[in-house]
Amino acid sequence: MLSKNTVKFIKSLHQKKFRKQESAFFVEGAKNVTELLLSNYTVSHLLCTEKFQEENTLLVNGFSGIKIEVNPKELSALGTFSTNDQALAVAKIKENKPLTFGKEQLILALDDVRDPGNLGTIIRIADWYGIEKILMSKNTADIYNPKVLNASMGSFTRLSFEYVDLLEKLTASNLPVYGAFLEGMNVHHLGKAANGILLMGNESNGISRQLEEIVTQKLTIPAFGNAESLNVAIATAVLCDNLTRIM
Amino acid sequence: MLSKNTVKFIKSLHQKKFRKQESAFFVEGAKNVTELLLSNYTVSHLLCTEKFQEENTLLVNGFSGIKIEVNPKELSALGTFSTNDQALAVAKIKENKPLTFGKEQLILALDDVRDPGNLGTIIRIADWYGIEKILMSKNTADIYNPKVLNASMGSFTRLSFEYVDLLEKLTASNLPVYGAFLEGMNVHHLGKAANGILLMGNESNGISRQLEEIVTQKLTIPAFGNAESLNVAIATAVLCDNLTRIM
Repeated sequence: MLSKNTVKFIKSLHQKKFRKQESAFFVEGAKNVTELLLSNYTVSHLLCTEKFQEENTLLVNGFSGIKIEVNPKELSALGTFSTNDQALAVAKIKENKPLTFGKEQLILALDDVRDPGNLGTIIRIADWYGIEKILMSKNTADIYNPKVLNASMGSFTRLSFEYVDLLEKLTASNLPVYGAFLEGMNVHHLGKAANGILLMGNESNGISRQLEEIVTQKLTIPAFGNAESLNVAIATAVLCDNLTRIM
Repeated sequence: MLSKNTVKFIKSLHQKKFRKQESAFFVEGAKNVTELLLSNYTVSHLLCTEKFQEENTLLVNGFSGIKIEVNPKELSALGTFSTNDQALAVAKIKENKPLTFGKEQLILALDDVRDPGNLGTIIRIADWYGIEKILMSKNTADIYNPKVLNASMGSFTRLSFEYVDLLEKLTASNLPVYGAFLEGMNVHHLGKAANGILLMGNESNGISRQLEEIVTQKLTIPAFGNAESLNVAIATAVLCDNLTRIM
């Protein structure tokens, strides 16, 4: 039975302030909820329909937190989806721990990517290309924003994140830093897979001046038409595809 | 002076039914409006702020349609942007003419891409990669939807579109048809730039069975991580980047 307090609690998690205060966030829809249940996040609440229970018996039976059966109308009133006949789950936010990494990996660093949809899409792309760690400037969107989590399609459960001063962290890493610029090297001429840090900039302003100075290899996605730019998530995908290609 | 009738007319264009009836659409924001004014679309109305006029004197003075000076509050009440201190313009919808093309081009074909944001992003990507023509199944989103036009960032003005029965059109073209599938050839092994038709499928269902039969080369974007899929706009960008690369 869904209590008024639970409704109030989950609705408060739409706002960053309360997510921080409660150290909790929610995800919705079958894909995100099943990925969350299979992950190493601590899930406190599982609100699900009979349908979801039938289709995910093992996962639901194995869940040891607070389980509440709800109907689709209750679910869509709680979350951001216009319809949701599956599930919604609440989990504990992970601590913002310093990430460590070596030169054998490709790491993503985001300099003020502010649009939640872009951030979620980038997380999904990173997961596709086997990137496991994302560094984010403090003005980057909150990964626990429901729009980020929805766009990530469950991929956020497989990655680690750190909000950090990028200038300090990237400088200290001593790794090559790749950044997208209009006047960089044609990424098609890269020749072979490359590890290091791929730095992506803000939607309107690109990579900040300060960070530009520590970019060791400026890259450009060759254009054949007349569009002035690509969306940051699109550019991330194309660069990841080039940085990971073996031939 | 903004009349009640103009307000009513522009507000009606938010809906496909009225866009069709009036054979008109609107775009908003500096980027889209300036691109529209520079294009071969017939622009009937230009609603702009003093700021926009000052920053685009030549364009505004050269405009021969109905010009109305408005304030940002009026603009945002008319369009879909939460704020707009620049401009909004109304233009005539182009007739849905049959597109012709030869084998020296890369053409995009969209099989029921229904999300307006995805369609707009794909148009921007196509423009980046020099694709000039897009064929769309009849269930693909309406290109004159404001969300499509906004996401396209003005790129829609440089492309030609046809809503058409893809099975008939693609079969009649006799061109190679590339399609993204999970079990296709690794697109990194393509070796050289390729022309023909790049067919992209629906967000949930991919390419329909019927159309799958006329795909001459199935392509796969290699995955290195665990994400199950990529968003259709992201996949379009990565495939275009591979199909247009010379080395």
